[in-house]
Amino acid sequence: MSSTAGQVIRCKAAVSWEAGKPLVIEQVEVAPPQKMEVRLKILFTSLCHTDLHFWEAKGQSPLFPRIFGHEAGGIVESVGEGVTDLKPGDHVLPVFTGECKECRHCKSAESNMCETLRINTERGVMLSDGKSRFSKNGQPIYHFVGTSTFSEYTVVHVGCVAKINPAAPLDKVCVLSCGISTGLGATMNVAKPTKGSSVAIFGLGAVGLAAAEGARICGASRIIGIDLNSNRFDAARKFGLTEFVNPKDHDKPVQEVIAEMTDGGVDRSIECTGNINAMISAFECVHDGWGVAVLVGVPNKDDAFKTHPLNVLNERTLKGTFFGNFKPRSDIPAVVEKYMNKELELDKFITHTVPFSDINKAFDYMVRGEGLRCIIDMGK
Amino acid sequence: MSSTAGQVIRCKAAVSWEAGKPLVIEQVEVAPPQKMEVRLKILFTSLCHTDLHFWEAKGQSPLFPRIFGHEAGGIVESVGEGVTDLKPGDHVLPVFTGECKECRHCKSAESNMCETLRINTERGVMLSDGKSRFSKNGQPIYHFVGTSTFSEYTVVHVGCVAKINPAAPLDKVCVLSCGISTGLGATMNVAKPTKGSSVAIFGLGAVGLAAAEGARICGASRIIGIDLNSNRFDAARKFGLTEFVNPKDHDKPVQEVIAEMTDGGVDRSIECTGNINAMISAFECVHDGWGVAVLVGVPNKDDAFKTHPLNVLNERTLKGTFFGNFKPRSDIPAVVEKYMNKELELDKFITHTVPFSDINKAFDYMVRGEGLRCIIDMGK
Repeated sequence: MSSTAGQVIRCKAAVSWEAGKPLVIEQVEVAPPQKMEVRLKILFTSLCHTDLHFWEAKGQSPLFPRIFGHEAGGIVESVGEGVTDLKPGDHVLPVFTGECKECRHCKSAESNMCETLRINTERGVMLSDGKSRFSKNGQPIYHFVGTSTFSEYTVVHVGCVAKINPAAPLDKVCVLSCGISTGLGATMNVAKPTKGSSVAIFGLGAVGLAAAEGARICGASRIIGIDLNSNRFDAARKFGLTEFVNPKDHDKPVQEVIAEMTDGGVDRSIECTGNINAMISAFECVHDGWGVAVLVGVPNKDDAFKTHPLNVLNERTLKGTFFGNFKPRSDIPAVVEKYMNKELELDKFITHTVPFSDINKAFDYMVRGEGLRCIIDMGK
Repeated sequence: MSSTAGQVIRCKAAVSWEAGKPLVIEQVEVAPPQKMEVRLKILFTSLCHTDLHFWEAKGQSPLFPRIFGHEAGGIVESVGEGVTDLKPGDHVLPVFTGECKECRHCKSAESNMCETLRINTERGVMLSDGKSRFSKNGQPIYHFVGTSTFSEYTVVHVGCVAKINPAAPLDKVCVLSCGISTGLGATMNVAKPTKGSSVAIFGLGAVGLAAAEGARICGASRIIGIDLNSNRFDAARKFGLTEFVNPKDHDKPVQEVIAEMTDGGVDRSIECTGNINAMISAFECVHDGWGVAVLVGVPNKDDAFKTHPLNVLNERTLKGTFFGNFKPRSDIPAVVEKYMNKELELDKFITHTVPFSDINKAFDYMVRGEGLRCIIDMGK
């Protein structure tokens, strides 16, 4: 691979030319990495709702043509000036949010919201020079959240790259780049249920099921899934969920249903839908004295979280998390190790695999709500 | 004292016959302690806003005649059947909320909201038999929050009594029965600021200043006081407060003022007013990524806590606390030790002392907002 270092690479990328229209596999040019950047060869990528959301671009200022993709596994092809942490051949996961290791957030043990490299969905260019590294026939193509993994090669800031165990299968651990880590970390790093405790999970998509997987690893004895779609309940059992509630089946608020099931409330709850009413229910369904609710799902911009302050005063805790509070470079390698030592199960999240040429099928599955994660094999 | 064990004791008590009317020092009869109860000789008591609130009884179902008082220090006179933890002569602080040591809350390391002995402001009788231990000429007089310390002798459930170092001066440590522990614990047990951090305190009454004292002990380098009454600022400096904000002096919301003062927000905030807008400001003024806001002040029953959920998602934490998360029997003795070893300063909270015969003066001081704590000396 070293023969390409410093050179423009011509390779295939799935370009989104227009909002909501099928991606087109194009031959694109990928410029060499600049200062503090690395160029990655992507081997496997998967599709996450955030890609879909910005591809649909409803109510957004459109930024096209663009190369989406942010859950992926790859190998470092070459590194730019100043990069000392990574070298060609390293196995890595690119991450949509970064860790500069120098700002107040990176220096805080509690935060992973790096000031410099925090997710920016509106920026379509590299941070250093405000330019794109992708082009086709001289026309720049925008980046997406600093990763743009729907391309055989991509350029990423070194602060957005987690170096992982080279023995880890990239077609599995690539899902740790975003959604699975988000749910898993929400439980393991933020809610921190103790062994034998009860946990409610709102929303049984991939993130919610990853939160359940975290609860299973923590040894929770009751994991209660809440979803408006009862069809999801059967498949959810293999993620450790023990009970299910569909709010549609009840006349009373779901927080009251859960309080009755659990003698006053669950020990922990994780909200993974982004629906404001689910957020309020998730908070109000935890037990007074010790209950902790963690918000993960992204709300609408006009939503208001509203509760009686006595619900707080009675020693409940409300927390929010972003990327499961994982610091991408410092923490994600250890999550990969949890998979390697069989503590963490990832294979059950992967319900589909398609060759790169069929990437639009992955979008179809997600639009139809089929499955959890579809791996896109860049080599096929 | 043992000669009185098992006998009715005739002694002086300050009886509140009617809402808002001056207390009357009466000769009352105090029955012997029953099963799991202890009878205490109260040496010093102090007045807290909660006494005032239920004495004024505005908008409440009145429960009179009643003996108020819940911050106090005393000595065990005799114990009822089944009491093995305490014996006559023990120095104690009665507490308005209890610790049975057997319920889920008492067994949880996180909660102090005992199911059996949790504060009950509407009950005016003992838990065991639904009767009062106080009477005058055969007429029962109601208890208040299980303590009724405005009496030379009172009967308290053993679960509401903290046994303390007999060397501790009861005229000082009596204030640890309620308000001072509430504020102190909110900071030290719940907000837990680290050394060098910034803390905002909303409301500079006794509870808020105790929260500041907690921040001082934790080594906070900036302690910002927020109060609508700027007259409180000068006196607050000796509680470690370094800066002050009066929301009336600003056109913008106080959370924005604080964010500007602190490069994005304080590390911790403690809300001690009970005002709903202050609660929202206290939450929104903490830094994203790591900020923790703790609610202490008691809200009105129709209040709604309202914020944009993104304020939570951005890794802020909202917590509530009751009695500073101290378990009365297990934790308060160690707080007394903090005073004994000069880590905790209490004397500065005591601004007045009156003899028992002048107890109504203590009410006058509080109604006029003068001073912090008025000690009532039962022996004078």
